[in-house]
Amino acid sequence: MASYFENSSDALVPDALKGFARAHAELVTLDPEHGFLLSRTAAPSRRVALLSGGGAGHEPLHAGYVGRGMLDAACPGRVFASPHNRQVYAGSLAAARAEGVLHIVKNYTGDRINFGIAAERLAHRGIPCARVLIDDDLASDSADIASGRRGTGGTVLIEKILGAAADTGLGLSELQELGTRLAARCRTLAVASAAHTAPTTGEPAFPLAAGELEYGVGIHGERAQQTVPREPLTGLVERMTTALLDALAPDGPVIALVNGLGAVTPLELYAVHGELAALLDARGTDLARALVGDYITALDMRGFSVTLLAADEEILRLYDAPVHTAALRW
Amino acid sequence: MASYFENSSDALVPDALKGFARAHAELVTLDPEHGFLLSRTAAPSRRVALLSGGGAGHEPLHAGYVGRGMLDAACPGRVFASPHNRQVYAGSLAAARAEGVLHIVKNYTGDRINFGIAAERLAHRGIPCARVLIDDDLASDSADIASGRRGTGGTVLIEKILGAAADTGLGLSELQELGTRLAARCRTLAVASAAHTAPTTGEPAFPLAAGELEYGVGIHGERAQQTVPREPLTGLVERMTTALLDALAPDGPVIALVNGLGAVTPLELYAVHGELAALLDARGTDLARALVGDYITALDMRGFSVTLLAADEEILRLYDAPVHTAALRW
Repeated sequence: MASYFENSSDALVPDALKGFARAHAELVTLDPEHGFLLSRTAAPSRRVALLSGGGAGHEPLHAGYVGRGMLDAACPGRVFASPHNRQVYAGSLAAARAEGVLHIVKNYTGDRINFGIAAERLAHRGIPCARVLIDDDLASDSADIASGRRGTGGTVLIEKILGAAADTGLGLSELQELGTRLAARCRTLAVASAAHTAPTTGEPAFPLAAGELEYGVGIHGERAQQTVPREPLTGLVERMTTALLDALAPDGPVIALVNGLGAVTPLELYAVHGELAALLDARGTDLARALVGDYITALDMRGFSVTLLAADEEILRLYDAPVHTAALRW
Repeated sequence: MASYFENSSDALVPDALKGFARAHAELVTLDPEHGFLLSRTAAPSRRVALLSGGGAGHEPLHAGYVGRGMLDAACPGRVFASPHNRQVYAGSLAAARAEGVLHIVKNYTGDRINFGIAAERLAHRGIPCARVLIDDDLASDSADIASGRRGTGGTVLIEKILGAAADTGLGLSELQELGTRLAARCRTLAVASAAHTAPTTGEPAFPLAAGELEYGVGIHGERAQQTVPREPLTGLVERMTTALLDALAPDGPVIALVNGLGAVTPLELYAVHGELAALLDARGTDLARALVGDYITALDMRGFSVTLLAADEEILRLYDAPVHTAALRW
């Protein structure tokens, strides 16, 4: 038996979805055939449905963001595997509004392919469909990587902001433009001091010596380009923050997400946040909003990510709009 | 260097408190001298302040429950160590309302002593003070344990309910009576498949063979009375739930808390919740409310707890009252 609490590694995701739908029955329904989650509550002003999805193992992403003011539907795949295009298609059909559906897709090959096939089928049905691609992972920002930057923590912030924008009644192309603009204004860096447990073997998914750190790790355990020695937190956060600020060069307020990848404690995340806030203060950058906690995880990886999104007044107003989902509520 | 992300093991808690106060500046202030957190928002109708505290390492408990509709103040100690009585005294003085302060104390010797000394000093100052002792851990329910049952997951539910009751304007003895009644109606059981990382050594705090489970583990890594073989989730949850129902014999609705102890994934917790809900359905017990997530942790322990609270209409009404804290909001 693997080291996860489960009936079997195949049963874990379907069992979790059933439990999730039961725990949040006022917010979502679970489609028993295709395994997508559909919001029970959405603003009547919303003309376009927002649908996201991707591999399981990143909870609360995406199911935890279905509900009022955020996603209309989420399609979870198996652990670290893209949802099937039939699932995305069925979820899109169920969620679609008068002016169609916007797919919010993290930049991974499998997700791009499956969401793409679903979008073609939707087009054949006459349902307008567009895509926002999230590619905020600074560690995969390299001319050597043909697939481009991976999508990671920024997804949470962008799904929140797009949800509020959809509630104001924006159309499909307006939402796509806003989402694309948001993705361009967002970068994330992640580090890990231990890999997640591989679901099938119960062993760490990659080796890492004590005192070493994966700097720039991916949310599926993609190894970083650098393995670096551990250092005290102040220096580590300064290094990460400097890289993010260099990439974004924000000239206005920023929204930060200090995110646990699974096994990191809230004590550590709040300590990271304190360092981040002090650094931004020192650099004269306005830390306008912040989230601290487990918002997009990598099973039980011992690591954290820092996301910065270069905001403006309009973005902050959308971010502040009320939201009621399982994992985000204000 | 230990395996936590920190500047030093001594710095982690103070650094985290600074980051927490920064992230939730609209909800709390941090007393720089004594290290307690004080709510910035409380109902004017509240006549008695609610203060809790205990060792750090259990976040979001207690700091995450300071705010509107819940605690007026929280006193975190060092990791797994009671707050100092001077800290509890200073926090109580700062928080006290016209009719005094209620201490919500988990049943551990150090906490009992330090809250007790603080209460005596408060009495000398003429400030009414009473105590609710939380002792919900079924695993330590034994005539052999002179110190009584430990306090654990039930603390979260009881702090929520007492917060709503305090907002209705109840007096000190009424709140103490209600809290004591709630504690008697609440039981918790926890299991772990791996210990937390000891902050000073970076090693697992206790050994546990692959395929073994600590059944009845404590939130500081107190070993269980039983080490049992791993089993599929359905059987494990049935065993835990049956023990809780046998102890409580609820004759009305129950509130459940499915709680992660640190490194367990949301997938697993929701799978647990699904099993729990199915079992309660089958037994004819009304699962009226549920929380699923990390609400009271044990650093990065790989385990979870299940708490049941035997409710009634009044308790459900108080539970449903609005709350706005860092970790609980509705």
